[in-house]
Parts: sequence; C-alpha cells; structure tokens
Amino acid sequence: MMNAMIVRVALERAPYEVHVGAGLLGETGRLVAEVLPPGRCAVITDSNVGPLYAARVKASLEESGFSVSVHVVPAGERSKSLAQVGELCEGLIAEGLDRKSSVVALGGGVVGDLAGFVAAIYYRGIPYVQVPTTIVSQVDSSVGGKTGVNAEGGKNLIGAFHQPRLVMADTETLSTLSPREYHEGFAEVVKHAAIRDFSLIDAEGDLPDLIARNVAIKAGIVAADEYETGDVRALLNFGHTIGHGIENAAGYGRYLHGEAISLGLVAACRLSVEKAGLDQGVCDRIVAALSSHGLPLVLPADVSTEAILAAMRRDKKFRGGAVRFVLLRGAGDAFVSEDVTGADIVREIERLRVA
Amino acid sequence: MMNAMIVRVALERAPYEVHVGAGLLGETGRLVAEVLPPGRCAVITDSNVGPLYAARVKASLEESGFSVSVHVVPAGERSKSLAQVGELCEGLIAEGLDRKSSVVALGGGVVGDLAGFVAAIYYRGIPYVQVPTTIVSQVDSSVGGKTGVNAEGGKNLIGAFHQPRLVMADTETLSTLSPREYHEGFAEVVKHAAIRDFSLIDAEGDLPDLIARNVAIKAGIVAADEYETGDVRALLNFGHTIGHGIENAAGYGRYLHGEAISLGLVAACRLSVEKAGLDQGVCDRIVAALSSHGLPLVLPADVSTEAILAAMRRDKKFRGGAVRFVLLRGAGDAFVSEDVTGADIVREIERLRVA
Repeated sequence: MMNAMIVRVALERAPYEVHVGAGLLGETGRLVAEVLPPGRCAVITDSNVGPLYAARVKASLEESGFSVSVHVVPAGERSKSLAQVGELCEGLIAEGLDRKSSVVALGGGVVGDLAGFVAAIYYRGIPYVQVPTTIVSQVDSSVGGKTGVNAEGGKNLIGAFHQPRLVMADTETLSTLSPREYHEGFAEVVKHAAIRDFSLIDAEGDLPDLIARNVAIKAGIVAADEYETGDVRALLNFGHTIGHGIENAAGYGRYLHGEAISLGLVAACRLSVEKAGLDQGVCDRIVAALSSHGLPLVLPADVSTEAILAAMRRDKKFRGGAVRFVLLRGAGDAFVSEDVTGADIVREIERLRVA
Repeated sequence: MMNAMIVRVALERAPYEVHVGAGLLGETGRLVAEVLPPGRCAVITDSNVGPLYAARVKASLEESGFSVSVHVVPAGERSKSLAQVGELCEGLIAEGLDRKSSVVALGGGVVGDLAGFVAAIYYRGIPYVQVPTTIVSQVDSSVGGKTGVNAEGGKNLIGAFHQPRLVMADTETLSTLSPREYHEGFAEVVKHAAIRDFSLIDAEGDLPDLIARNVAIKAGIVAADEYETGDVRALLNFGHTIGHGIENAAGYGRYLHGEAISLGLVAACRLSVEKAGLDQGVCDRIVAALSSHGLPLVLPADVSTEAILAAMRRDKKFRGGAVRFVLLRGAGDAFVSEDVTGADIVREIERLRVA
C-alpha cells in the first residue's frame, strides 16, 4: 500500500475523497472497492489514454472482484457529443451493466465529462469514479461533479451535476503527456493561485503536493456552492469568459484549452487592475507565471475580435444578457463584478494583440 | 379563478403541488408564474396534442409575461430517443433559452418523460412543469420526477430523476382522447386500487376527484421513496413486469401501454392468489374492473411466451439476475416478493391464453 495524499470534498449529501499520489493506478481495484461493492464496471477511456493505462486499471479492478469492460472513444473534444453518449449507453447495455454497476472515467477532461454524464443518465444514474490523467483534469475538472457534452449550439450546454464516489489522481500518468499538454494544465493552477492562494503562483517541486493543494482549493469552492447557485463557484470562471471566446473563435484544434485560458487570464488581470484596483505588480506576476510555462500571452491578428465576441455571446456564462465578470481585488481575492461593459471587453481583447 | 383540487408531493428538498381541475389550461400562466419567475419558456408537445392545446397554453403563459416557443415532436413512443433529445436541446439553444428558462411538458407520458429529461440535462438542469393530457400521465407518470428516453437495448434505460416544479392536470383535455386511449389509462387506476386503496376499484363519478385520489396515492409513494432506493416505490411496478414483457413482445403499436399492463395485472393477481394467499374474490374484482373498461384479459397465441420472456430479460427491473416481483397479500396491500420463480412466470403467461 502506497503513500497518497487525500483531500476530502465535504459535500452535505455525498462527500467523497480525492486521492493524489504517484503510482495510484495499480491501487484502483482496492480503492474503488472501498467505496463501491464489486460488480460490473465499465472503464471509459480514449484512444490516447486507453492503450497506455486501461489494461493496468482493468487488471487491478478484476483483482478486487469487479467484472470489467473497456470502452474506448476517439481522443478529442468531438467525442463530447450526445451521439457518443448514446453509443456508450448501448455498449453498457450490451455488456449487461445495470443500476448496481459502475463507471470508471480514465483520461483527461473530455473523458471525465463524457463518462461522468453517461453515469449520470444510465439507469437514471449509477456511481462512477474519476481517474484523471492530465494536469487540468487532476487539478480541476475531475472534482466537483460537473458532467456533460457539447451541443452544436455551444460547449457544455447539455449535462448534469453528478458527483463521483472517488477521484484518483495518479501523478505518474502525467509523465506521458507531451510538454505542450503538460504545460497547458498550469493555466488552471495559475487561476487557482490568482483567485484563492497566491502562494501557488510560482509553486515548484513535488507534483503530488502541488496537485493536492489545487484540489483542496477546488474542493473548498465546490463544497461551498455545489450547484453554482451562489457566487462562489462562479469564481472558478476567472479568465474563462474571454478565454472560452478565444478558444471557440480560434477554431477546433488551434489552442489547447489552457492556452486559450492563458490569454483570458491576461485580459482578466488587466481588467482587474482597471476596474477593481488590482495592484499592477500582482498582475505582472500572474502574467510571468503563465509565461514561465510557455503559455500564450499575445493574441494573433487572424483571430478577429468580432469572432470572439460572437463566440462569447453563445457562451453559457453570457446567455440571459447580463455580463457577470470575475475580477481580482487583490492576490487570491476574486469577486463577481457587474461593472464590466462590452466596451471594456472589446478594449481588452484588442490590448491582447500587443506583444 | 377556478376551483381545483391540490395534492402536495411532500418531498424533502423540492416539494411541489399537483393541481387537478376542469379547465386548468387557461390558468397555465398564472399557476406557472406562482412557482417560476417569468422568462423564456419552451412548451414541448407532440403532433397530436399540440394542434389542440398548445396555442391556449402559449397565450396563457404570454399573458403572465413568459416569452414562449413551442416545440412539436412526432406523436408516439419513437420520439422517446436520445436523438430527439438532442434535436430539442438544439432548438432550445436556438431560441435563446438559458439556465433561467423553463420547460412546459404538454401531452401524455411520452412527452412528459422526454420533455422532463430535456429539462434535466439542459444547462445541467432547468425547471419544468408537467401538463399531462392523458389518464395515465395524469394519475401516474407526470408525478414523481422519473424522466428519460428509450435505448435501442431497452425502454427507459437512459434518464434522470428530475422533479417538476408543478403539475397541472386539466381533466377537460381527457375529452379529446379516443375511447381506447381513455380506457387504457384505467389500468393504472386499477393498479393504484390494488396496491393501496381498494375503494378506488370501481370508483365512478367525478373525474377530477378520481384523478386527485390517484395522484395522492402516487404522491405518497414517491414522497416515501423518491429515488426508488427502498422497496416502496417498486410497488408501483405491480403488473408491470409481465405487462412490459407483453408490450415489448407484441411489438410497437399493437397494444397501448395500459392494455398490456391489464394483462400483466391479471397475471400478477393470479400469482398473488397462489404465492401470497390473496383472496380469489379480490382477484376477481380486479379482473372485473379491467374488463369494465374493455381492457384485454386474454393473451393472443401469436405473442409467444418465448418472446415475452426475452423481452423481460431485457427489462430494467429484471437485469442483475434476481426476480423481484410485486404481489398482493390482500386488497390494497402489496409487497415485493422474492418467491416468484421463472417457472411461475411461464405458467402464468400460459394461463393468460385461456379465455
């Protein structure tokens, strides 16, 4: 039995633990059996992660008495579709999974969102476990129960809140990420530093420790506002309003999620200086942290402001009219502002073009 | 303001009211505005019900300040599909509905299940109101929050628990049902009588009163076991195990749901006499009540026992192996039995063939 850090997500109805450690994959069966009675289990993964880790996860689950089927979807955002959900459900039915069965999501954010949503609606909801294998999914998307897929009309518009029973973040899986994939994940780490704990801003060293500290931030925010009915969970959108607009306007495959969010964070920090009195030095340190991971800071001319604004208007966060924008008052101190105008946003997008 | 009976569904987290009365449709806007702030609202209905009632519902909602779009799906069980869910979601996105918007389900069970599921997963869940227009949906499916669609591999295998904010049963809408559709609904009334309140077994007279009494039974059971984690809600499956098998084996469009359930009820009553000591006189009265509505009591030879058993094995209630069968000990007194064997079921199916 190995050494792992454990962060508790203290939800009222269904609290759960996030385990973080190097080599956890080999413990999958033992850990899952602690929260779920052994039965049929579907491991849902993608064409990148499956060949690397699915066999190890399957063997570990089988050792603990689970009857395991593996379902592989094509890697990439396009798998986050209702059609893919339908295909997976039919596959689970064919394998004989019923309401006492469970799902293990093995992969990055796309797999976690997709497999979590399948678990949310299969037999009106069965338990699932998140096994995130990227920085973004380990520090952010695997925790909190947001699941879902994209509609043609916009990202993440179809989904459900469905909390996992357990999250297992094996930091060894991060070693197979390409440098670009590895570094993009740090946009969310920088975001956590900016909105909650500025000591993370240039955190170095032990990866499990860094992941666990980020999970603790996410867990605290989720526990305070599980269904995003208050303002607390919305703080996690810092940098994401303009960032998502850029991601969508740039078109599929150009930016990784974290790369677009890096640009959104730069814009949101500058807006915070102007509209909320954020110290320029704090803004500079955030930008420097993004830069240290090679994340983009300058917006290319061919991603037009008009396209970004159009994408933002289709964004879930923007629909319904009112612009609610997350700003920083200070290092680690975020709030939801209603003072940001459309003109402010246009100006900041334009400023992103200046190196 | 008109006279309606009100039944409360006393759920812990999100209680709601079921209003039953003649002419309620004209009050839609006023009643919905009592539970939801006016905003964008999608009325989802089908090609049978829409032409009759959608305009009246839309006008009433608009009078109360809602901005209303109407979405019509083809009438019939085939609309209960994930593909139809996707189409509806894209339609709602195109109309600009967001997380503050709502859905009104106007129609029978198919529309209620489908529209409720759309509301469950649109923007991770938006509020909805059920406006059931058939006997079955008024006395049963509109209350309790079970929503979902069919998979290719089986009925209702994809869905969510999502409680409505309000149910409005206008008994005047029942007047446009064909006699066959009207009478099939009484299979569920007879079921409620059998499992909970035998005084309903030959209830006559005031339709709103009859509907409200049935809703009260359903509401009590749902409040006791919202997520069907106990045995209470399972009692509503009385007659449905064999009934669903017959419905599926007979093939799409041959039996209305209630007609197949009538056969299932006959078999379940006879099994109750044999396995649980139910008085033969009670069994006879249940069969007589079904007969008085012209519901089928005899199974035709061309619906083979093998096909029924195969369909039962694909049924959600039967997966996972154990046969859990709802029986009656006495009039109005049901329980979940584990004493019913496969051989018992085969014998009862065969006995259904004898007039």
